[in-house]
Amino acid sequence: MKTEISTQFKRLQDQICIGLEKINTDSKFSEDLWDRPGGGGGRSRNLSDGNVIQKGGVNFSEVKGKTPELVLKSLDLPPSDFYATGISIVIHPLNPWVPIIHMNVRYFEISDGTYWFGGGIDLTPHYVIETDAVFFHKQLKAICDQHNISNYSQFKKSADDYFFMPHRNESRGIGGIFFDRLSSKEYKEKEKIWQFILSLGNGFLPIYIELISRNKDRPFTKAQKDWQYLRRGRYVEFNLVLDRGTKFGLDTNGRTESILMSLPPFASWEYNHNPEPESLEAKTLTYLVKDFDWISHD
Amino acid sequence: MKTEISTQFKRLQDQICIGLEKINTDSKFSEDLWDRPGGGGGRSRNLSDGNVIQKGGVNFSEVKGKTPELVLKSLDLPPSDFYATGISIVIHPLNPWVPIIHMNVRYFEISDGTYWFGGGIDLTPHYVIETDAVFFHKQLKAICDQHNISNYSQFKKSADDYFFMPHRNESRGIGGIFFDRLSSKEYKEKEKIWQFILSLGNGFLPIYIELISRNKDRPFTKAQKDWQYLRRGRYVEFNLVLDRGTKFGLDTNGRTESILMSLPPFASWEYNHNPEPESLEAKTLTYLVKDFDWISHD
Repeated sequence: MKTEISTQFKRLQDQICIGLEKINTDSKFSEDLWDRPGGGGGRSRNLSDGNVIQKGGVNFSEVKGKTPELVLKSLDLPPSDFYATGISIVIHPLNPWVPIIHMNVRYFEISDGTYWFGGGIDLTPHYVIETDAVFFHKQLKAICDQHNISNYSQFKKSADDYFFMPHRNESRGIGGIFFDRLSSKEYKEKEKIWQFILSLGNGFLPIYIELISRNKDRPFTKAQKDWQYLRRGRYVEFNLVLDRGTKFGLDTNGRTESILMSLPPFASWEYNHNPEPESLEAKTLTYLVKDFDWISHD
Repeated sequence: MKTEISTQFKRLQDQICIGLEKINTDSKFSEDLWDRPGGGGGRSRNLSDGNVIQKGGVNFSEVKGKTPELVLKSLDLPPSDFYATGISIVIHPLNPWVPIIHMNVRYFEISDGTYWFGGGIDLTPHYVIETDAVFFHKQLKAICDQHNISNYSQFKKSADDYFFMPHRNESRGIGGIFFDRLSSKEYKEKEKIWQFILSLGNGFLPIYIELISRNKDRPFTKAQKDWQYLRRGRYVEFNLVLDRGTKFGLDTNGRTESILMSLPPFASWEYNHNPEPESLEAKTLTYLVKDFDWISHD
């Protein structure tokens, strides 16, 4: 099944890059192949300074070898071999009306037979547009509803918890779905989990293309671009201070350029910045909270 | 002695702000007074968009109350009260030829009589200018040499170790001096440590004014400004991933705006950026290493 998973992940990477290049018409992804010293490697695809995507990465990796000490310790396991494959995507759009999107889908197994799937999709609008947020969450719910192993409400709550930043008392964005350690001893169930992962992976492109199409040609002001820089600053804070994947990658001596491809082109910090009351920026902050029910927000 | 220390720290904050305002002629620091819910508070002074300083903070704080759990745990101590006062400075200059500077001096004590001083000054040039780096380190050595409790070589090594970023295999800048837990049971020794701290605090302004004066009017290109943005990105990485003070502040529910005042105005990330061989940028990277002997580099 490993081969099936990694083959499909590579196909997904191809499909997503081709799809994004259709809408980002003036530049293409460039590819970087890399080997991991301990075993395996990856296929990084990055694009910058496009007319739609200011900086984006669509990365595939398939790594294996001795299970890192850190993993053995956290799982209280004896030495073993591991295999992990996944796709990580972060897109920072040029236009502040287009949201930042992130998807990660991954499969992990160790030689004793333990395995799990993890991942999710979440959205970080610089400006929350209610109809877009509703559309996004409904699409994710529809994908979850197609499969009996995936529960939108539960995965949505996990995303809300995961993407919350205590030091700012705000969420990174409007969430999405997030799940980890999806697993089952039954082979049939494993197949079902995998079908859900595939649905989610296949869902990414149409969802994001729709959000791009709706907003990419909207005019914006310098002040709105400045707000985008500040929001990207918060994105950096989340990724470097709180994101478990980033921390794990850096702690296990992962490939820094792939781990930090999530960081934006131009981010800014201003001391004690507070948007004008009643402004669009202030309104956006009211949505960056846990447990906002987007599905019923029609 | 607490009162003497915090009074001198406030005086230092005043002096440094006045000195920086003399050279940054078009804008002044604005002050923000804040209270800490558990006891004490601070006097934050920040400046942005100046003709010399693009973003800078010169912060004083004096906080007290119940010792945070995290501190008790790390020191293996029973519940107690604490008192801490200090100054934190980070200046991000507009001109890429002027280096970023950081100083922190602080005093900490708990009700059982345990106390220590900590801090340091370090420099992060976007472009390493050898004569400036030698000047900077010689000035710090001269300050250390005036006092018998401060050892430049030892403190310089601590800075090299502290500011090294394993995930980039490079140092944040050219280091400086760094020390923690300077303490002694003898009252006379405590007085000596304090005199060293004062010398260091008083040394900050003339050292940085000299570095600013040498470089603030040097012309720069757009490419050099872009390089500054990338170097600021590394500064963000250090502060959010590795800096112990930032982590401690965020973990103990400190005042986020004061803790993160160190973050720059405009930072950028580019996937896998590598400067041209033999360029000034590539040359700078060769200096961002541990154990570079600047004192003998004349």
